[in-house]
Amino acid sequence: MTPHPAIEHLAFLLGTWRGGGSGDYPTIEDFSYVEDVAFHHVGKPFISYTQRTRDATSQLPLHSEAGYFRPVGRDRLELVLVQPSGIVEIHDGRIDGTTFRLRSSRVLTTPTAKEVTQVQRTIVVDGPRMSYRVDMAAVGHTLQHHLTASLTRID
Amino acid sequence: MTPHPAIEHLAFLLGTWRGGGSGDYPTIEDFSYVEDVAFHHVGKPFISYTQRTRDATSQLPLHSEAGYFRPVGRDRLELVLVQPSGIVEIHDGRIDGTTFRLRSSRVLTTPTAKEVTQVQRTIVVDGPRMSYRVDMAAVGHTLQHHLTASLTRID
Repeated sequence: MTPHPAIEHLAFLLGTWRGGGSGDYPTIEDFSYVEDVAFHHVGKPFISYTQRTRDATSQLPLHSEAGYFRPVGRDRLELVLVQPSGIVEIHDGRIDGTTFRLRSSRVLTTPTAKEVTQVQRTIVVDGPRMSYRVDMAAVGHTLQHHLTASLTRID
Repeated sequence: MTPHPAIEHLAFLLGTWRGGGSGDYPTIEDFSYVEDVAFHHVGKPFISYTQRTRDATSQLPLHSEAGYFRPVGRDRLELVLVQPSGIVEIHDGRIDGTTFRLRSSRVLTTPTAKEVTQVQRTIVVDGPRMSYRVDMAAVGHTLQHHLTASLTRID
């Protein structure tokens, strides 16, 4: 299926990616993970995003999230994202070539979720390689590094 | 994999479902659709939900959404949900046997999305059959019927 013209300039994202990363935050133990990411389209002006991580040692599921990338013109992007930990994020993003700089304009959490107030996501694609960094302000801590990962296109 | 004890009472949801429905709203033409729904778990205390619809005639993709059901005890449920139209929903839900009554506590939209202010979702499961109704307050209209559908478990 041909990508919608509104997402043509982001076709380099489409496909499935595999890799791994590590995470830290003042409130938790450092951890590392393996990860599968997929970006798909259905001919419409958005790209669906799904992600799953597993523990690097035990292979047990850790995190997952899902969302949609909504390009606005050529150099802007809206991201809506949901996490099973009870978090929804709305991001206002800038696209600079193959680099995405996403800053949350709103983060909401359910009554039983941990408090997250701000998220920044930076994604850099270089051909078959992708890396990202996630910064987060949560449970009373200021915005700071949470995750770094790198992936390779597998399909 | 064994479902986490926190979702055991919702195991009747797990699997894939297929069916169809119809929709209306004051601002759009009536429409009908075919639909695939999946509820999965990974051994953790939530159920992932994905949905896709296609036009009943052309089979072209219409809508999709993704989210997570987070049981709170036996009779309550948090739902976080994201739509590619730039909408995120947080619901506070009640579980009565195999009936779910979900009311949005918060709905947020991206700057370029249509305004949606309130959503109610009712899901009824009867063995291998599932039906749902979605009511919505959007673009200046009060909360009213938007979608009705029925599905059958296929896996």
